[in-house]
Amino acid sequence: MRMIDLIEKKQHDEALTTDEIKWMIDQYTKEVIPDYQMSAMAMAIYFKGMTEEERSALTMAMVESGDQIDLSAIEGVKVDKHSTGGVGDTTTLVLAPLVASVGVPVAKMSGRGLGHTGGTIDKLEAIPGFHVELSQNDFAELVNKNKVAVVGQSGNLTPADKKLYALRDVTGTVESIPLIASSIMSKKIASGADAIVLDVKTGAGAFMKNVEQARELAETMVKIGKSVGRDTMAVISDMSQPLGNAIGNGLEVKEAIDTLKGEGPEDLTELCLVLGSQMAYLGGAASSLEDAREKLEANLHNGKALAAFKVFVEAQGGDATVADDPDGVLPAAAFTKDIISKENGVVSEIVADQVGIAAMMLGAGRETKESEIDLSAGLYLHKKVGDKVSEGDSIATLYSNKEIKEEVVSKVLSNIRLSETGTEPTLIYDIIQ
Amino acid sequence: MRMIDLIEKKQHDEALTTDEIKWMIDQYTKEVIPDYQMSAMAMAIYFKGMTEEERSALTMAMVESGDQIDLSAIEGVKVDKHSTGGVGDTTTLVLAPLVASVGVPVAKMSGRGLGHTGGTIDKLEAIPGFHVELSQNDFAELVNKNKVAVVGQSGNLTPADKKLYALRDVTGTVESIPLIASSIMSKKIASGADAIVLDVKTGAGAFMKNVEQARELAETMVKIGKSVGRDTMAVISDMSQPLGNAIGNGLEVKEAIDTLKGEGPEDLTELCLVLGSQMAYLGGAASSLEDAREKLEANLHNGKALAAFKVFVEAQGGDATVADDPDGVLPAAAFTKDIISKENGVVSEIVADQVGIAAMMLGAGRETKESEIDLSAGLYLHKKVGDKVSEGDSIATLYSNKEIKEEVVSKVLSNIRLSETGTEPTLIYDIIQ
Repeated sequence: MRMIDLIEKKQHDEALTTDEIKWMIDQYTKEVIPDYQMSAMAMAIYFKGMTEEERSALTMAMVESGDQIDLSAIEGVKVDKHSTGGVGDTTTLVLAPLVASVGVPVAKMSGRGLGHTGGTIDKLEAIPGFHVELSQNDFAELVNKNKVAVVGQSGNLTPADKKLYALRDVTGTVESIPLIASSIMSKKIASGADAIVLDVKTGAGAFMKNVEQARELAETMVKIGKSVGRDTMAVISDMSQPLGNAIGNGLEVKEAIDTLKGEGPEDLTELCLVLGSQMAYLGGAASSLEDAREKLEANLHNGKALAAFKVFVEAQGGDATVADDPDGVLPAAAFTKDIISKENGVVSEIVADQVGIAAMMLGAGRETKESEIDLSAGLYLHKKVGDKVSEGDSIATLYSNKEIKEEVVSKVLSNIRLSETGTEPTLIYDIIQ
Repeated sequence: MRMIDLIEKKQHDEALTTDEIKWMIDQYTKEVIPDYQMSAMAMAIYFKGMTEEERSALTMAMVESGDQIDLSAIEGVKVDKHSTGGVGDTTTLVLAPLVASVGVPVAKMSGRGLGHTGGTIDKLEAIPGFHVELSQNDFAELVNKNKVAVVGQSGNLTPADKKLYALRDVTGTVESIPLIASSIMSKKIASGADAIVLDVKTGAGAFMKNVEQARELAETMVKIGKSVGRDTMAVISDMSQPLGNAIGNGLEVKEAIDTLKGEGPEDLTELCLVLGSQMAYLGGAASSLEDAREKLEANLHNGKALAAFKVFVEAQGGDATVADDPDGVLPAAAFTKDIISKENGVVSEIVADQVGIAAMMLGAGRETKESEIDLSAGLYLHKKVGDKVSEGDSIATLYSNKEIKEEVVSKVLSNIRLSETGTEPTLIYDIIQ
């Protein structure tokens, strides 16, 4: 086989066979196929796309390029959730104990954040004592016992995807739906998921700027999952404003606890119920999505979800009293500042990525891999899209351990936009199953 | 400027500016831009094409990437001819003295052959004593004195094109008309041409398999030439059978001499008159193409073309008696073999590239850069498309200094195809000016 022949096939709109894709990914991982041929291929795929068979073959070839996590020691159907990334996305903190509370095992492998989107591990580490360094054995035992545990990423998962993604990033081939879909799905499958729930974000703060693109990506991923034997569902959810009210690690833990008590922000609660229903249904804990939702809603109000959270935190060394007294346990910021509205109106837009960058500037995120995170830093939105604002109202509070600069204040103020009438926000655009 | 931004511009069908193309080619030549970004760009160009302005900018950026030959010491308009490559293409040997004989300076820089297409220098070296090692100064003096000289390629011409061509060759991006056109034109311009005549071949033996592709390439090159101040014309000529009857270095010299005496094969003579007319007209030696043709035709029959050939050969150390006694002066092959037809019919096709490969196998061409050439080797076609053949006729004679293998005989025989009726060959498909 010669890479040049495969490039020319793709150029001329012929589908590559599974064997050809396997060979290509294997040889690329081994650095036999050079970057300059792979980037030409990626550009040809950008223009010509991939068939369903090609996408599935690419996904599995990337899975097979490195280690694969074996979760067979964990009982039950292991359902994993993936979000395409947003600002103030506290769903994992809520979903892990919530879904565990209905008996579905949540064996979560998570990463740290980079840039203005936070990582689940950073958020959990805001709870004093909480750690994610677990052996593969301890991890499985914890999940079998408590139905939930979170562990840091380990092993050499999907090296082909890492290499290809880095190449796409510098050759204008990131924005290819088949390549994005295969990349995401390969990571989830290599992590050992039996079933997968996808939260595809759309809007100004997301990678997919419009609903049509998001739907295409979601449909592509669901098809890949099903074709390789992983039951997969997807939600298309809004990221034209941050999810929930809190952005920042400690602040989001507190918001997650409120939500697990049934007292969380409406949008965060609703998205957790929609995603959680898919997870509970795919995990076999309910006979339908409706049935799953009822069970989850009940546990948000009967204390079972919060109890699962306490057990989960304690098992990983964390101070579980955080559930009863978040303000007393979570780190407090030395400086706070209210953003005061200078006008009357209705919130029409909260530019999610810009507000996320403001939170990062306060210390809540990493600008580079080496940056230290301030776990107390971030911001809390008192108003969301559709809310009325009067001159003099506090629309947000900023938290930081360094003095809060005027440029951050004006960045937040200029990215929370008011209009005379306002618009009713949409949270869920579609469900793909 | 960032290469990634330029790649994305081209992807989204936006034209690159002249400054952007200049920067890109400069940084690529200096190895600041890596191959993997340039191959992604080449693939984007393959799919999205280039505007007229972009093609001219790319051509000139490649010209400026290396040395440029200064022919200002030579008087008159320097017209260069380029052929896209064919089998048995003896035109340069005929055109150089023929055009010189009407007073247009022919300052020809030539290369050696690789594969089954011969190089002009190899052909000339079949004349004992002929050499092409001339200083820049001696070269200019010779052209001023005799109106014709041929020199070997020297200097670091269009390094960007060499680097880009090597990359395109392994990334499926050779077959892009704007990239082919810029590559050819940059080499001619860097070689110092004031005006350019292009012979774009089409047919089985050529790179452009059909007339439409050939026309698009020709039109693209003529536009580039004109837009950068080089008067340019093109001929679209047939390469569905070899040009002339001789294939091989010494054999083609003999054929060129016959042609300069007005006794050459009809197709070679006609193509030389068409190309020569364009060269003479662009060089200012005639008031129109018709006027140019009349002058050239006259010189083929009044001895002036042959006289120019003798002066040219003698000035570069060659034995000029070759013009009067080619068989006595040119190297003779130790082995010859006639190809005898086993059937009756009319020649309908002579597969040019396959017949060229047969000549190479006899020793006439180089399989690798290091191969030694047998200057006496090659083949002579006694029949061309449209000619009647009877069983027992010799349709071709093979020449070699090694014993002639059966596989070569059968390769030639199987690639000279007969039919009952035959077809009338077309030589010139179009003239682009």
